[in-house]
Amino acid sequence: MKKNIIVGQSGGPTAVINASLWGVVKEGLAHREEIGKVYGMVHGIEGFMAGRYLDLSAMEEEELDLMKMTPAAYLGSCRYKLPEDLSDICYRELFEKFRQMDIGYFFYIGGNDSMDTVSKLARYADSNGIDIKVVGIPKTIDNDLILTDHTPGYGSAAKYVASTVREIVLDSSVYQQKAVTIVELMGRHAGWLTAASVLARKHPGDNPLLIYLPEMDFDMEQFAHDVEAALEKQPNVIICISEGISDARGQFICEYADAARLDTFGHKMLAGCGKVLENFVRDRFGVKARSVELNVNQRCSGMMASETDIEEAAMAGSWGVKAALEGATGIMAAFFRKNSSPYEIECRGVDVSLVCNQEKKFPEEWITEHGTDIGEGFLDYVLPLIQGEPERKMENGMPVYAYRKAD
Amino acid sequence: MKKNIIVGQSGGPTAVINASLWGVVKEGLAHREEIGKVYGMVHGIEGFMAGRYLDLSAMEEEELDLMKMTPAAYLGSCRYKLPEDLSDICYRELFEKFRQMDIGYFFYIGGNDSMDTVSKLARYADSNGIDIKVVGIPKTIDNDLILTDHTPGYGSAAKYVASTVREIVLDSSVYQQKAVTIVELMGRHAGWLTAASVLARKHPGDNPLLIYLPEMDFDMEQFAHDVEAALEKQPNVIICISEGISDARGQFICEYADAARLDTFGHKMLAGCGKVLENFVRDRFGVKARSVELNVNQRCSGMMASETDIEEAAMAGSWGVKAALEGATGIMAAFFRKNSSPYEIECRGVDVSLVCNQEKKFPEEWITEHGTDIGEGFLDYVLPLIQGEPERKMENGMPVYAYRKAD
Repeated sequence: MKKNIIVGQSGGPTAVINASLWGVVKEGLAHREEIGKVYGMVHGIEGFMAGRYLDLSAMEEEELDLMKMTPAAYLGSCRYKLPEDLSDICYRELFEKFRQMDIGYFFYIGGNDSMDTVSKLARYADSNGIDIKVVGIPKTIDNDLILTDHTPGYGSAAKYVASTVREIVLDSSVYQQKAVTIVELMGRHAGWLTAASVLARKHPGDNPLLIYLPEMDFDMEQFAHDVEAALEKQPNVIICISEGISDARGQFICEYADAARLDTFGHKMLAGCGKVLENFVRDRFGVKARSVELNVNQRCSGMMASETDIEEAAMAGSWGVKAALEGATGIMAAFFRKNSSPYEIECRGVDVSLVCNQEKKFPEEWITEHGTDIGEGFLDYVLPLIQGEPERKMENGMPVYAYRKAD
Repeated sequence: MKKNIIVGQSGGPTAVINASLWGVVKEGLAHREEIGKVYGMVHGIEGFMAGRYLDLSAMEEEELDLMKMTPAAYLGSCRYKLPEDLSDICYRELFEKFRQMDIGYFFYIGGNDSMDTVSKLARYADSNGIDIKVVGIPKTIDNDLILTDHTPGYGSAAKYVASTVREIVLDSSVYQQKAVTIVELMGRHAGWLTAASVLARKHPGDNPLLIYLPEMDFDMEQFAHDVEAALEKQPNVIICISEGISDARGQFICEYADAARLDTFGHKMLAGCGKVLENFVRDRFGVKARSVELNVNQRCSGMMASETDIEEAAMAGSWGVKAALEGATGIMAAFFRKNSSPYEIECRGVDVSLVCNQEKKFPEEWITEHGTDIGEGFLDYVLPLIQGEPERKMENGMPVYAYRKAD
């Protein structure tokens, strides 16, 4: 008997979360004998609970393919945590909706918080004898999910960060005056994305000269020593830092600016750690200093999307559907690396309850030079993930993207 | 008798300033009977006065072509103003160096400040009967040079801004909660680059809903009214502003944060106007608010370089050499638009002393909706400038750029 699919996106955007959605839809449509419709939740589980969804199987082929290459979440997203107590009424209501819509397969594309949703729904279905397969598709630029070699979204973000830092290095090196440029990158607790800035170097000894991850305690005086040594090597020093660097006491460096962050209206002025270090460097060394916060584009830009990442994201979505059709539930699609050179991965299912709410840190053995550089081991790991440039659809000089018409 | 060329780059980087340099070198090399070597000043006139230059005519063809596609200034740059007094000793010293190097042609690629250098050197040569042709090649992302339809560098920056804002709009629209995102763009006095954000709209009524340029007085209460009306139209409002917006008294909005910009070390915290407006919106409307400062990448990114811009920049360089060989001096290569559709321009020389130290503002007739939007007239003007995507040289997943080996 035919059943329907429902799929949702959750958490922050990435360049390839829509490629995973594409994978789910295409694979669903390829099993016409078992699958009826492929529904998409609008704004994740939160929007769905408010009755918002659409029929993705009705999408035009061309629009669907455009969606695959569109960054950010086509369906809209949410940050919503389901109650811990599985006897909460919302579960009964949710599964009643699933029953009315004849849902047999539930897919959720997201990070560790979203895998918590997958875990809870799978357990509810299991303990209530409901035949709905619940599968998680990983997604996060942070690359911090455990039990998977890497996460879809990371490769494109890493490629964007590396390319952008390479350009910032060019820009920062045009003048001969001594100057320090601090680039602040995303990553509250894990330094995976900041580590990718090491790829920006055009030759050994090139900028960025210093790289700091949240995995190591950050010390202002040690930093001053590092900067002093770097300025002796070359006049233009570029430093990459994770937004989440903190000191030995666990205080975030960005909080060093807390006390005085008020503007003339009396509002709090939130400053990043880049701004804090910029001021510190200017004051200590008397050199030109500036900070650049790459901000949301490192997660949502399609300009430097990695073709490998896009295709792997699509594969994760498609693998999830096949696994669910074969009866799997309560799992997340995970990548296992069989080989780095030549690069080869395969999808396997891992217990989603082990993945959710966990964080994979950047390995300490890849942090070198007393916490200021990244080692070769990381390069072997990351290089395969940033390979390939997809063809981009352009119209009148601008990239064309798919979007949901007013709903 | 053969003479040599010397060429320099000055002022802030752009995505195509090296394409103009390429144009000068290639055109120089094409006139082997009249031109000996093509020298490049390292770090502009300032570096040259300190004896730093290199021989660009010795560059490998492949490296030269890579340089054409490399953003930021290959030769390095400077911000250096020659003395007003042409009897200052530095002029005698400069022209003595030119004599020793057998320079017959001087080219300077830069913005309005750099054209001041061109004007002074041309006047000095003229009044001292020295036969050196001095020609300016325009360059600035700000598009604020007068007597030219537009400036090389603007098209690529406009395309980058428009594409990036389109991505920020996608990113900012994934959640259903009301939110305001403020994007701060370069432009202290002229709004050309910020105006390009209007190209980000995917359909009429799309974000960015509000656009503010420095050409109009900015009023906080009017802004509050505008934001309120925009939030009634849709939950996610994206606003683009120039860094240089100021109020009716001429005070920059970013200065509204002055009084309290101290961190815990007692350092001044410089905040942009985006941060000021972010705080204002959060406080006034109680909605999620954030600001994004595009920062240096809008001027130095090759990711969204416009092929039209690259080719026009090269043409300006090459035209300058031809004009100088025909005897022109004291001019800047300017673009005259013969037609917008089909787009057609030609180079002509304009008196550089009229161009330098002047600023071309964004036309008020293109500012609509009481200073919050950009009119159709601008679209006809700007669209031809962002057309075409050049092929990018990639290696191991990363863009490859030319750079000066340690000098």
